[in-house]
Amino acid sequence: MKKHNFSAGPCILPQEVFKEASQAVLNYNDSGLSIIEISHRSKDFVDIMEEARSLALELLGLEGKGYKALFLQGGASTQFLMAAYNLMESKAGYVNTGSWSAKAIKEAKLFGEVVEVASSKDANYNYIPKGYEVPDDLDYLHLTSNNTIFGTQIKELPTTNIPLVCDMSSDIFSRQLDFSKFDLIYAGAQKNMGPSGTTLVVIKEDILGKVTRQIPSMLDYEVHISKASMFNTPPVFAVYTSMLTLRWLKKLGGIAAIEELNEKKAKLIYSEIDLNPLFKGFAAKEDRSHMNATFTLANGDLKETFDAMWKEAGINGVNGHRSVGGYRASMYNAMTIESVAALVDVMGDLERKA
Amino acid sequence: MKKHNFSAGPCILPQEVFKEASQAVLNYNDSGLSIIEISHRSKDFVDIMEEARSLALELLGLEGKGYKALFLQGGASTQFLMAAYNLMESKAGYVNTGSWSAKAIKEAKLFGEVVEVASSKDANYNYIPKGYEVPDDLDYLHLTSNNTIFGTQIKELPTTNIPLVCDMSSDIFSRQLDFSKFDLIYAGAQKNMGPSGTTLVVIKEDILGKVTRQIPSMLDYEVHISKASMFNTPPVFAVYTSMLTLRWLKKLGGIAAIEELNEKKAKLIYSEIDLNPLFKGFAAKEDRSHMNATFTLANGDLKETFDAMWKEAGINGVNGHRSVGGYRASMYNAMTIESVAALVDVMGDLERKA
Repeated sequence: MKKHNFSAGPCILPQEVFKEASQAVLNYNDSGLSIIEISHRSKDFVDIMEEARSLALELLGLEGKGYKALFLQGGASTQFLMAAYNLMESKAGYVNTGSWSAKAIKEAKLFGEVVEVASSKDANYNYIPKGYEVPDDLDYLHLTSNNTIFGTQIKELPTTNIPLVCDMSSDIFSRQLDFSKFDLIYAGAQKNMGPSGTTLVVIKEDILGKVTRQIPSMLDYEVHISKASMFNTPPVFAVYTSMLTLRWLKKLGGIAAIEELNEKKAKLIYSEIDLNPLFKGFAAKEDRSHMNATFTLANGDLKETFDAMWKEAGINGVNGHRSVGGYRASMYNAMTIESVAALVDVMGDLERKA
Repeated sequence: MKKHNFSAGPCILPQEVFKEASQAVLNYNDSGLSIIEISHRSKDFVDIMEEARSLALELLGLEGKGYKALFLQGGASTQFLMAAYNLMESKAGYVNTGSWSAKAIKEAKLFGEVVEVASSKDANYNYIPKGYEVPDDLDYLHLTSNNTIFGTQIKELPTTNIPLVCDMSSDIFSRQLDFSKFDLIYAGAQKNMGPSGTTLVVIKEDILGKVTRQIPSMLDYEVHISKASMFNTPPVFAVYTSMLTLRWLKKLGGIAAIEELNEKKAKLIYSEIDLNPLFKGFAAKEDRSHMNATFTLANGDLKETFDAMWKEAGINGVNGHRSVGGYRASMYNAMTIESVAALVDVMGDLERKA
């Protein structure tokens, strides 16, 4: 039986992507070779990489607007340092909305002065700071669009003229935004895009080349751009599977179509959280993430019963992160509304039973 | 029809590994979940990572000798800079045996003085320098054990008391060596170990913590060691498939067993190269790689005929690198002697035909 997989990442991908990727590991495109044994310089793989790069820009509406898409390695954690290495000459601003923002800040401090423009650490990151002033002498402002651990999501971008850098690891491709407002977007693949092992970097070329420090080749965005994202051997399987997922999203109608589904899923779970007296939402209502719903049991004594019930229902991966406790339902693009309904049913059953 | 895949990397892996990895992408271990949708913090994946790390040390004979094994991202290209970042305080030595050594030297120069202890660049890297002196005031000496592009391989290690760092990307796990002579070994997975997307790092812990510079977390070996190779989301599929390949190698009898097979394969192809008047070997005989045999046609006019013949025989990936031209037969661990025989047959057929 296929599970209802609410894992926070690596996470569910479309079932047809699992099938196609699995087949390609045996025999890619009837070539007699596995996708993981072909040269990354072969036409087959160069085509895959180019399709992935171009689908990423197309889906984000950034084609022909001076952006390049790269599929790198090392996760968002490597981007924390690459962003600063490439863009921070003296001072950068960071909005601290959770553990990942805090990690980005830590790495950036090695390269210059970090101004913490706003923070919600005072309330264990259960809200998104708003109405803060952005100094205009910063090299860039860094945001985390969605906070996987705390279940919050930025709904409105701050007004500023300085370059905008955004870690979109956990909500890229999930909702419509004017992506051209950003100068650098990065996202680990393992939520809405593919398996772990590759990181999408979308960068406006004209912000590069402005820092005076020397940058090691593997950390230099300009090097990767000049080599069409193939400076060294790319993570072939992760890029291929990401490309399949982007193809699936395009066929579905792109971000507009998936946003509609994501809104329905979010409405379903948050309604249950708000109406069912046994549960409490963690994040401030206006900042609730459509990707990760965090909630706790009002009465901890019910934990054992509830845990047994959702496991029985074929549900997986809803345990909350230790920083928040309770539960977290991650509902990335590939999750069906039927899976969310299955969880909501169990929550309702608990109420009837308790 | 399954091809004879001589690709230089990504390359052939054991057929049973393709099958098992393919099945896991559909449904891992009958869990109802794909290996690429489970949490990297799940017991299933933590067990995989630990088995991979422990198999690596066991196969290299390094268990209980103060070493740690890590599965990182970014390829050997990232190790070029990490080795220097973590180990070079002022001055390091490099033996320049090919394009990859030269790239390692380029990155290291950002962190201190690089002494090129020896080089075979004068002869387009067709031999391994020998009998050179290693200064004793270096932070470490860096070697490239096997030169994929040129088809040379270090057979005897230089005598020195300074820490030894070695890029073993293209011959790790292929031959017996006293691996405890090295303080840092790194290898991109995509030759003898797995798919592209992960890099094995084997490090003697007591060489760490000696440089004064601050190291970004993702580039710091000590950070990765302290987090058991899970500082951030690892490349799950690449680590899993590498673990399967290491399991296969252990079952086969480990490095001793595969070395015997690799010697037979090398003997078979090099005999043909030496005896068949239509072909010329590129690398100096005493330095010939058992992984990558480089050779050219004595008479370039036969190229079209030869190319048609090996393609007809189901052979793939024998075109030489542009730095050498001609042909390169990469015969990594998973390649059977039957595949090498198929290529040798075609070479013989060409002689009979020409």
